[in-house]
Amino acid sequence: MIVNMFGNATEEQIAHVVARIKECGFTAHLIRGEERTVIGVVGDSNKHRSELEALSAAPGVEEIVKISHPFKLAARSCRPEGSVIDLGKGVTIGGTEVIVAAGPCAVESRDQITDIARRVAHSGAKLLRGGAFKPRSSPYSFQGLGVEGLKLLRAAADDSGLLVISEVMDPSQVEVMLPYVDVMQVGARNMQNYHLLRALGETDRPVLLKRGMSATIEELLLSAEYIMSGGNYKVILCERGIRTFETYTRNTLDVAAIPVVKQLSHLPIVADPSHGTGRRDKVAAMARASVAAGADGLLIEVHPDPERALSDGAQSLYPDQFAELMAQVRIIAPAVGRTVASAVTATVAGAM
Amino acid sequence: MIVNMFGNATEEQIAHVVARIKECGFTAHLIRGEERTVIGVVGDSNKHRSELEALSAAPGVEEIVKISHPFKLAARSCRPEGSVIDLGKGVTIGGTEVIVAAGPCAVESRDQITDIARRVAHSGAKLLRGGAFKPRSSPYSFQGLGVEGLKLLRAAADDSGLLVISEVMDPSQVEVMLPYVDVMQVGARNMQNYHLLRALGETDRPVLLKRGMSATIEELLLSAEYIMSGGNYKVILCERGIRTFETYTRNTLDVAAIPVVKQLSHLPIVADPSHGTGRRDKVAAMARASVAAGADGLLIEVHPDPERALSDGAQSLYPDQFAELMAQVRIIAPAVGRTVASAVTATVAGAM
Amino acid sequence: MIVNMFGNATEEQIAHVVARIKECGFTAHLIRGEERTVIGVVGDSNKHRSELEALSAAPGVEEIVKISHPFKLAARSCRPEGSVIDLGKGVTIGGTEVIVAAGPCAVESRDQITDIARRVAHSGAKLLRGGAFKPRSSPYSFQGLGVEGLKLLRAAADDSGLLVISEVMDPSQVEVMLPYVDVMQVGARNMQNYHLLRALGETDRPVLLKRGMSATIEELLLSAEYIMSGGNYKVILCERGIRTFETYTRNTLDVAAIPVVKQLSHLPIVADPSHGTGRRDKVAAMARASVAAGADGLLIEVHPDPERALSDGAQSLYPDQFAELMAQVRIIAPAVGRTVASAVTATVAGAM
Amino acid sequence: MIVNMFGNATEEQIAHVVARIKECGFTAHLIRGEERTVIGVVGDSNKHRSELEALSAAPGVEEIVKISHPFKLAARSCRPEGSVIDLGKGVTIGGTEVIVAAGPCAVESRDQITDIARRVAHSGAKLLRGGAFKPRSSPYSFQGLGVEGLKLLRAAADDSGLLVISEVMDPSQVEVMLPYVDVMQVGARNMQNYHLLRALGETDRPVLLKRGMSATIEELLLSAEYIMSGGNYKVILCERGIRTFETYTRNTLDVAAIPVVKQLSHLPIVADPSHGTGRRDKVAAMARASVAAGADGLLIEVHPDPERALSDGAQSLYPDQFAELMAQVRIIAPAVGRTVASAVTATVAGAM
Repeated sequence: MIVNMFGNATEEQIAHVVARIKECGFTAHLIRGEERTVIGVVGDSNKHRSELEALSAAPGVEEIVKISHPFKLAARSCRPEGSVIDLGKGVTIGGTEVIVAAGPCAVESRDQITDIARRVAHSGAKLLRGGAFKPRSSPYSFQGLGVEGLKLLRAAADDSGLLVISEVMDPSQVEVMLPYVDVMQVGARNMQNYHLLRALGETDRPVLLKRGMSATIEELLLSAEYIMSGGNYKVILCERGIRTFETYTRNTLDVAAIPVVKQLSHLPIVADPSHGTGRRDKVAAMARASVAAGADGLLIEVHPDPERALSDGAQSLYPDQFAELMAQVRIIAPAVGRTVASAVTATVAGAM
Repeated sequence: MIVNMFGNATEEQIAHVVARIKECGFTAHLIRGEERTVIGVVGDSNKHRSELEALSAAPGVEEIVKISHPFKLAARSCRPEGSVIDLGKGVTIGGTEVIVAAGPCAVESRDQITDIARRVAHSGAKLLRGGAFKPRSSPYSFQGLGVEGLKLLRAAADDSGLLVISEVMDPSQVEVMLPYVDVMQVGARNMQNYHLLRALGETDRPVLLKRGMSATIEELLLSAEYIMSGGNYKVILCERGIRTFETYTRNTLDVAAIPVVKQLSHLPIVADPSHGTGRRDKVAAMARASVAAGADGLLIEVHPDPERALSDGAQSLYPDQFAELMAQVRIIAPAVGRTVASAVTATVAGAM
Repeated sequence: MIVNMFGNATEEQIAHVVARIKECGFTAHLIRGEERTVIGVVGDSNKHRSELEALSAAPGVEEIVKISHPFKLAARSCRPEGSVIDLGKGVTIGGTEVIVAAGPCAVESRDQITDIARRVAHSGAKLLRGGAFKPRSSPYSFQGLGVEGLKLLRAAADDSGLLVISEVMDPSQVEVMLPYVDVMQVGARNMQNYHLLRALGETDRPVLLKRGMSATIEELLLSAEYIMSGGNYKVILCERGIRTFETYTRNTLDVAAIPVVKQLSHLPIVADPSHGTGRRDKVAAMARASVAAGADGLLIEVHPDPERALSDGAQSLYPDQFAELMAQVRIIAPAVGRTVASAVTATVAGAM
Repeated sequence: MIVNMFGNATEEQIAHVVARIKECGFTAHLIRGEERTVIGVVGDSNKHRSELEALSAAPGVEEIVKISHPFKLAARSCRPEGSVIDLGKGVTIGGTEVIVAAGPCAVESRDQITDIARRVAHSGAKLLRGGAFKPRSSPYSFQGLGVEGLKLLRAAADDSGLLVISEVMDPSQVEVMLPYVDVMQVGARNMQNYHLLRALGETDRPVLLKRGMSATIEELLLSAEYIMSGGNYKVILCERGIRTFETYTRNTLDVAAIPVVKQLSHLPIVADPSHGTGRRDKVAAMARASVAAGADGLLIEVHPDPERALSDGAQSLYPDQFAELMAQVRIIAPAVGRTVASAVTATVAGAM
């Protein structure tokens, strides 16, 4: 941490800051420049961190500059070679293969989910996505099928040899979902729901953590840290678009977050171009871009009849569009030393 | 809802959209301009809303423009004269008086909270604020005193004749908090925690709902709608700063949200300039600005020794600064036909 | 400047950075912490600044943190007591009086501008605003009356004892405008038009510099520095709203920029709530908020018939609304130790 | 254009709006819903556009929704097959081949520019980029070599068989630059410098127009319209990153703007990942992402010794990194039906 004093800070003010730094158990290093004095703070950055931060409003202080990252377990330095996470059924993420999860926004019926599972498995997807509990911004919208939806999802995935990923919205749902779900998804709105993060940290199930709409990359990694500090290291990050002034797309998919996360953390990162754009005809372009930027996986909404979907129809691909997209990313992946499952392999899996 | 067709949309595409609109139970009105056709959709906007929205990706459709607001109970038209909410002990918000809640970010000890309660009551505050359960972005930061903190908060408030406002973070805390807290605060990170909103909608306790860091004003009103649709109409909105590119202040307090909310909704709205700026020396200016813009109240962090505060010390006022701020807003309030409690009245209350 | 090395930076990498710092003529101070090494750079921060910044991509470097502000002449430390700028006819800005400029977006006709000048002077305005050259985002919109507009503006202002403020868009217009205009306004889109800034720096005419829609406060001060480095120190800053995700208002007026600028710089700062909101019924609230936050002045669009205005009609006040607003800010100003001209004084001025 | 009336708008207010619409020469279509009345406006959308927009503040009006795009010549419908622009020497952009411009931020010396020209030509670049006039946010930074820089740039490009692209900052520079430059670049800060756009519209030289840091895609297309309305249709758009709250990268490259522009306009669009990220180690990932998303070209900063570059060193690639990047995009391009020049072809060109 660096304390940046104003140019006109008095010696008394500097001495006060130095005294406070020592009082908090740190060492102060003064650098006296021509224009101002800067004070370097050395010590364990988590101890008394809040008190040190309060120094930013001490007399004579212009600002506090944090130097070390507040996340530890999620930091690249903890596992420089990168994490490869086992999702079950021999599927791992974070390795050479780009892993694709696909399916509808919400589970609507047995026929819908079974049909779409077969189609996406055929095209090379390894996970079936689908919501049973839906977070909707309006209390008057369809809220999901609940546990019944989970059962349908599980059955459809098993039928096609897929794994299941589904969103958990509240700590009370964790126990209910564990029997049906291989990867627990935390939505963007819940990225800083600390009770939920702690509850997931106490399980050993892989968690896909979506970046909040206005969360910095550092905040995303801090939320991962909440889960990891409970003992569950199987965290997969997900870039799903941030909120900006541009409204032509629903969100702005921050593709650069992919290489940034790769540098800062050892955790795998996937992209969700469906929520990241909100428009079906932009999904494929952004899915390709994400793989080209180094994403470890994709999360894609696919629906057999998007115009009649109960939610997110506008951003869901038709199954044929999904198949075409998979063919494109198979061409792109080798440019970054990666592979994508072929349609044939997936068909075999589906027949198991 | 308006469906805006592309200029080169075919008659077949237009007919398809019209057919879908009818299929969803709505009436379609075609407006054929020189450049393009626009289709007005008339009917109950909540029924089949999702399916209609899916039309945005139908062939020939450029975009769907929503016309009616998705919130109903929170809309100004529901109560054109505005809501005045009874907080207890004869204090109401939404009327002529500007109501101020003040206190530390977190309850730290009996002495700290009792001392600060007396001081802010003396200056004219009507509510004592203080966190017992703290949502911290790092799992390694101070997380609050829990129930013990609630008891200290209640005792200190009673000692000074103040009401209590404190943050609830999870549905499981609602029952625990009700005996101690007069106004339940929902933090910015939980603005779209729908389980929590529903739980609060089932109580009859006033709720102060903070705007999420990247939430639009419409989304804030939709979250209020979640609480109100459960039967609890005592919702107070709070502008606490949005996230923008400007980093000199921690957030950008969207002061204009105050008159916008006043137009769109009948609910009271207060401002939180402490979180809105993150810097002690900017708090007073933004508190004054909020009152001048028409805020129904203020939420201010005050700490007896900000440099040693366990959280948010950098943005907490010293008690004397708070007293000075109250004197300033007393001058401003009449410009918008409002009043602020005088220091004398508050002293009497404190002595009860 | 601080060079923040990665935790795993090698000694060789650290030595390389230190060598480069010396090569650029600076002194390096190493602070070795438990997790990483941080290098403080001391010396004249403008010399070789670019080369130092290139260090941010040197091996082992995580980031460069700039400590000193890049602006010098605009810095508060240059004139701690604040600048009071003489605008002519005895009007100064930056002192005790809050100065108001009012008038239409564009000069449309002699009658329009003469009429509105009298009305705003009567209410207490000291400057008449009006565009002769209009920057319009569409090439097909009304582009202003040009020099003819300037003549009408000057005559109307003189008729009412007002000063003239008008926008300059290109260096080629500076000479043309000087005979007619007391304050040269630089629009938000031109905040970083360096040729224009340099041209204005060579005059001795006061310049009102608007903040760009996505400019940080530091960038605004750097643009002021361009003008000042040419010898013209009469710069007035203007907050006019930044672009954020919130679309209910046209821009988000960053009211907090007012106290921030007051701390960082000695230059006066005014607010433009008309462009800052884009909606007539929000202008008064934000004008009041700006004065309460400490603004040195206001820039308000007023039009005798806003519904028929050739530009910005939606955000222009009716003359009566302007008069009411002036009465409100007269109540607010004393809360921050300021005054606003009374309607009577202005009438006398208008009769000169 | 759609006029959205408040739910409680009176018949008198509706009649007033209808009358104003007719007065402006348009036809009004009323759609009366259960909750509110919506009025469709039909007619030539550019005539009296401002006056219509002023209706947004008429009594009873909630908002005006613009339906038709304000750009005409830049619209896809003008040339549905897309524009292929001839840059000279047989190089075209907008066709099958992805065109790459590379070179240093600023021309620094004959040796520097000649050396880098040969290297980037060898790797497959078709244009040499380099600034002679530099827009720098600080008046104290290196401002470029001026005309001398243009001459060095031209000579280096000719030596390697490359075309020249360089930034024009002011209308006064247009004539000076034409003899040396094949593509005139308009920087992000000048995207709305209308005098400059008009001056370029009067030439027949291709113009690369960069998106402003806070410009919407629609505003970018409107600025292209300014150039095109002067008769110069050779406009190439450039996505170079927008300003968001995320500060880890200098800007957020809005990759989705690429497919959005492809849908809205016939103009080619390229990406500038150097400015879009500001960090050398993120440039390649974002360049690959842009090609995967459908970009027609790339603009890449390459410097022989980035750590000693006079500007933008932190984001400049080393020549070897550029060669590697070109090899990667050669793998990706076929996924979107495109090609990238091979290193061999470019070498031949360099030897001409």
